[in-house]
Amino acid sequence: MSRVDKVFMRRALRLAERGRGRTSPNPMVGAVLVRDGQIIGEGFHPRAGEPHAEIMALRQAGKSARGATLYVTLEPCCHFGRTPPCTRAIIAAGVAEVHMAMLDPNPRVAGRGRAELEAAGIRTFVGELEAEARVLNETFIHWITTGRPFVIAKFAMSLDGKIATRSGDSRWITGPAAREQVHQLRDQVDAILVGVNTVIADDPQLTTRLDKDDIRHPLRVIVDSRGRIPLTAQVLDPVLPGRTMVATTEAMPIEQRRALSFRGVQVLVLPSQDGRVSLPDLLEELGRREVTSVLVEGGGTIIGTFFAQRLVDKVVAFIAPIIIGGREAPTPVGGLGVERLSQALRLERVQVEWLGSDLLVTGYPAWQEA
Amino acid sequence: MSRVDKVFMRRALRLAERGRGRTSPNPMVGAVLVRDGQIIGEGFHPRAGEPHAEIMALRQAGKSARGATLYVTLEPCCHFGRTPPCTRAIIAAGVAEVHMAMLDPNPRVAGRGRAELEAAGIRTFVGELEAEARVLNETFIHWITTGRPFVIAKFAMSLDGKIATRSGDSRWITGPAAREQVHQLRDQVDAILVGVNTVIADDPQLTTRLDKDDIRHPLRVIVDSRGRIPLTAQVLDPVLPGRTMVATTEAMPIEQRRALSFRGVQVLVLPSQDGRVSLPDLLEELGRREVTSVLVEGGGTIIGTFFAQRLVDKVVAFIAPIIIGGREAPTPVGGLGVERLSQALRLERVQVEWLGSDLLVTGYPAWQEA
Repeated sequence: MSRVDKVFMRRALRLAERGRGRTSPNPMVGAVLVRDGQIIGEGFHPRAGEPHAEIMALRQAGKSARGATLYVTLEPCCHFGRTPPCTRAIIAAGVAEVHMAMLDPNPRVAGRGRAELEAAGIRTFVGELEAEARVLNETFIHWITTGRPFVIAKFAMSLDGKIATRSGDSRWITGPAAREQVHQLRDQVDAILVGVNTVIADDPQLTTRLDKDDIRHPLRVIVDSRGRIPLTAQVLDPVLPGRTMVATTEAMPIEQRRALSFRGVQVLVLPSQDGRVSLPDLLEELGRREVTSVLVEGGGTIIGTFFAQRLVDKVVAFIAPIIIGGREAPTPVGGLGVERLSQALRLERVQVEWLGSDLLVTGYPAWQEA
Repeated sequence: MSRVDKVFMRRALRLAERGRGRTSPNPMVGAVLVRDGQIIGEGFHPRAGEPHAEIMALRQAGKSARGATLYVTLEPCCHFGRTPPCTRAIIAAGVAEVHMAMLDPNPRVAGRGRAELEAAGIRTFVGELEAEARVLNETFIHWITTGRPFVIAKFAMSLDGKIATRSGDSRWITGPAAREQVHQLRDQVDAILVGVNTVIADDPQLTTRLDKDDIRHPLRVIVDSRGRIPLTAQVLDPVLPGRTMVATTEAMPIEQRRALSFRGVQVLVLPSQDGRVSLPDLLEELGRREVTSVLVEGGGTIIGTFFAQRLVDKVVAFIAPIIIGGREAPTPVGGLGVERLSQALRLERVQVEWLGSDLLVTGYPAWQEA
């Protein structure tokens, strides 16, 4: 790709970012229309049901779009969804050339938008800044190709690997900047998930608290296989913004189910696996409900089960520069764990950054290599 | 301080570094002699008993030292030690001005070298790049002011805070670059220390393995309160380079003591604390023997005891981007740990760097704030 193409595609990626956390179950998309080296129109997809990025850019350019080059972070759609197909608008506007960072990841569509453009005599190019475009829409790509939400395992631990003291004190391990980052994450995902032990121990609200308007409160999912959630839990309070779901099995007493429904809480009864909610079934069901991403916030038991069942797609670990100590103090990933080091799960594309005085380490499980 | 002073002092610090791991129980020192903006002599202290940095610089400069400015990372000595006092040589050479990054940290000496120079009419300046100079000689400063070695707690863990799998498999959590860094550390300290459980579980050699000549094998200290060390342990092998010491209590059977001594192993019988070797007594004794630094390499029990007794001066944590998992898998700092998060030990001056695909996090316990 030429240097100029890269500049415009990067601009399109930056535009796409503006929709972060708002486009689900659609992807984030950005578009830039260029003629004679000048940007004549640009746009991004702001949220599901609203115009696509390409349409915004075309509208801005008006008649001058004829003969122009379009840079778009994702292959334009060619089907009627919540909005009419973008390919038709691009063809009708007389665009001469379309650069798309990646094809539509939906395997039932991939390439059809491009083919339609080519059939209309438009030159197309695919793959400029594709790696960046794939990271941008990692959650959407996962969901559209597997039907399951993208699972992010998040934990905050001390430098000696503890998520709480031996007595369970865990507030707060990390500082304000890291905690705000957690709320930024909540603002971007479709659901957050904890085990019932966390509700019993910490009684969290699991809402998004950010100093801005237009806050998004993801669906709160409590995994409670036997119905142990206290009806006094804050997370069940009907006045909380956003919705709460309790994922359970047939083992939950019928009165408990009624009491939860009465509070407006969705109760999802799922098959059990060794007496516990089947997490694959839970993820399938969430995926069907257009939940494209789930932030698993702990504790160690539920995160351990997600890892043991290879259901984690990304790890977000906050590390505070403190020493808690204690043989019995809990660690972020519980369960049985692996027996041999060679079986340990390796993360790839690992990144580290400072958040105030804490470290944030992110990475992607290399399941295929495990 | 002027920009020029900083340049020369930084050069002196860099020269001092060349003695790293070789000057104990002396500090690392670097010196630069400058006249008319030109370096006319420089030197560093290569090892105890050999010339001091100032003397090397003066020898290089010869007669042109008259009227020159000396930059030295530590206040020049004014007493007869293994070598004659530097102050006399500086005065005799006719040096006009002396910049020292810091005063001699020995509270019984601090300032006397400077006073002697001033009395001879030499202008003196103290404190340029003092913070860097203090980090350079952190182990020496600690030892000379407290009489105890500087204690570095080192561990290698997974991103989920485990130092081994549930079955004890710990080889190798980190990659080659991090492991080489551990051997670099061993090459620089006066002693390394492990608990007898580590010897029983891993049978390590605890030698320094680096691809270079002039390798330093620190004193190996095994803390073995009751005399459980197997006589077949590699660390007791008389052919190993360097010396091994077993720190124990009266609870060690007399035959075991004899068997160890017979192998050339020093047996240090110390007071017991709750049935275990008193670590403060051990450190006092090591300090008396001119051990200025100890690298505590684990496992979790002994490191936990060092933290619980507030005996750690620096933390060196390697973090591998892998997930081991397991509620029962061991963590780096064992023992009881703190009960409330507010009692957790905060580290300051925290730094992070990549070592291959692993992270190295270092920091200093802020005991006074705990």
